[in-house]
Amino acid sequence: MAIALFTDFGSEGIYTGQMEAVIDTIAPDMRVISLLNNAPKTNPFLSAYLLSALCRQFSEKTVFLCVVDPGVGGNRRGLVLKADNQYFVGPDNGLFNRVARQAKNCRWFEIIYRPEYCSLSFHGRDIFAPVAAKIACQQSEGLLRSVAPPDCSTYPDDLKKIIYFDHYGNAMTGIRYHKRLYGLDLTIKQCTIAQAGTFSEVKPGKLFWYRNSLGLIEIAANQASAQALLDLSLADDIEFQNA
Amino acid sequence: MAIALFTDFGSEGIYTGQMEAVIDTIAPDMRVISLLNNAPKTNPFLSAYLLSALCRQFSEKTVFLCVVDPGVGGNRRGLVLKADNQYFVGPDNGLFNRVARQAKNCRWFEIIYRPEYCSLSFHGRDIFAPVAAKIACQQSEGLLRSVAPPDCSTYPDDLKKIIYFDHYGNAMTGIRYHKRLYGLDLTIKQCTIAQAGTFSEVKPGKLFWYRNSLGLIEIAANQASAQALLDLSLADDIEFQNA
Amino acid sequence: MAIALFTDFGSEGIYTGQMEAVIDTIAPDMRVISLLNNAPKTNPFLSAYLLSALCRQFSEKTVFLCVVDPGVGGNRRGLVLKADNQYFVGPDNGLFNRVARQAKNCRWFEIIYRPEYCSLSFHGRDIFAPVAAKIACQQSEGLLRSVAPPDCSTYPDDLKKIIYFDHYGNAMTGIRYHKRLYGLDLTIKQCTIAQAGTFSEVKPGKLFWYRNSLGLIEIAANQASAQALLDLSLADDIEFQNA
Repeated sequence: MAIALFTDFGSEGIYTGQMEAVIDTIAPDMRVISLLNNAPKTNPFLSAYLLSALCRQFSEKTVFLCVVDPGVGGNRRGLVLKADNQYFVGPDNGLFNRVARQAKNCRWFEIIYRPEYCSLSFHGRDIFAPVAAKIACQQSEGLLRSVAPPDCSTYPDDLKKIIYFDHYGNAMTGIRYHKRLYGLDLTIKQCTIAQAGTFSEVKPGKLFWYRNSLGLIEIAANQASAQALLDLSLADDIEFQNA
Repeated sequence: MAIALFTDFGSEGIYTGQMEAVIDTIAPDMRVISLLNNAPKTNPFLSAYLLSALCRQFSEKTVFLCVVDPGVGGNRRGLVLKADNQYFVGPDNGLFNRVARQAKNCRWFEIIYRPEYCSLSFHGRDIFAPVAAKIACQQSEGLLRSVAPPDCSTYPDDLKKIIYFDHYGNAMTGIRYHKRLYGLDLTIKQCTIAQAGTFSEVKPGKLFWYRNSLGLIEIAANQASAQALLDLSLADDIEFQNA
Repeated sequence: MAIALFTDFGSEGIYTGQMEAVIDTIAPDMRVISLLNNAPKTNPFLSAYLLSALCRQFSEKTVFLCVVDPGVGGNRRGLVLKADNQYFVGPDNGLFNRVARQAKNCRWFEIIYRPEYCSLSFHGRDIFAPVAAKIACQQSEGLLRSVAPPDCSTYPDDLKKIIYFDHYGNAMTGIRYHKRLYGLDLTIKQCTIAQAGTFSEVKPGKLFWYRNSLGLIEIAANQASAQALLDLSLADDIEFQNA
């Protein structure tokens, strides 16, 4: 098993490192993979779409330690979702709802584990990291209790919005590629963008959309930043024409 | 044991990766935790306060490999501090002085280890990384010699300054929370800021101060950047009113 | 053995984490070192100089998983270079040519491995990561076939250009230090810059050049950013006067 970190903590490491230190005390030989540290900041809704696309690249039995948690310290619960054979540990704010919709078998748990000392602002370190480590070590007895699934109906399977920008300025959407989209144009901020297979098929600087490596629609430009060229922001709306 | 990296190298990895490669040759199975790579740049004084708060989150026997080292290549020594049962390896520039003040038992050592080749600008790789790895493997014989403790009197227990900004723009200070501060207002850059328990207690965008997860006073705003709202810089002064 | 990641993916981790997850399924106990994630973006030529300097700091048998790959999805091949006893896995775009020139013994291979599913835009995850992991586990049979070496003649041993900026704004060049450069002045963007031994030898804010910790000429300023002071860009030209 491995533990994958999915957070909005940034790449500097002050929070990620503290979580890894906690994991190390419980699971000294466990691999900790920094999957992502720039999930949409304080935005569990957009983050839910990114997580559901990324987790499909990971093997069974991965434990995802997920912290996009603007409500920390309030009365939101801590949750564990077992979706098929992957585990997701984090706050009860919708972050796992899109994952649940694509899984064949889901079991939901509330975290009842409480540490001796618990900060008001960093449950990632004080609650979620130890729970994730104990699950990865199969020592979760007494930490969790079964709960009814949350209402996932407000998380459509495809989200017609920008959910992520990568280092190159490529703009990932929450829309899964489907063959009925083949050859259609896409509209964003009143610009019309045509499909291409991948970067090397278009001229440097030219905008295009394509099926990215996670199976999602992505707006990109060859050797340039689509984000900068179109002045894009997270949650910007996308439409396919005649779709 | 684990080795935690505390540096001002940035998150890109060119220096961190070289240190980890050195550690790997000496201690192949040792966990290396990237605790922090954006310590206050070339500022050992502010970094000392951050390190002393963070190390308390780590277990005994952690070895901290610390590189905030503007004087590299000059005549400053390399030091090892054994503080209670944690080790700190790095330059003799005050970086460990605040740690020493909070420890029950301190032993100080000068690093006498010298590699075959030593660069003038990267002792982190050439001296501190091998020494940290050998300490973690309990092979430190002949590398160190005991020295008298440095003068730590210019490192007050509480520093009324900003010492760190995180990815969200929260501004951490060097002041430890104490119950006598409860309910007091704080002044920074002629603004007055009231206390709150945590983020979810205040409206989005509102500034507040609180006890952060390291036990320090932190200035924050719910779902906004205190750093941007107040145009803050490292080392800005803080005062508590009527404190 | 260890696997070192050399990419232009940025420090956020969405791509690096997916590669590490693939490595983990094949080589669960293998150390993965994030050597660099801000190689010159989509620029294999400049990246080749950085890689050839960095790899000399690593031990024999390191496998370098290298992804600076603007041509992904086109008809460029995947390559493996065995240079002395290090391995380099990545695209056939010149990225390994400078490494080959400094090695005593080189063997070149084309990657014939193809996964069940292969994206058009992320061969780092789908092809290069599994091949690197299998090589590190000595399970490379059937993945590779020997090919003739590429033409490396357009990669001079010394490149008189900026190839990298670090977190401090130091500007690394592709020129190796040699004693015949001792005491010479260097010209960049019509500025003349003198040599110093290292940072602590010059006044804060002052520009100098020096032999950096990789053995390359670097333009720096004590506790300031040479990049900002001189408004430098990647690939800017450097000349030594009277050299």
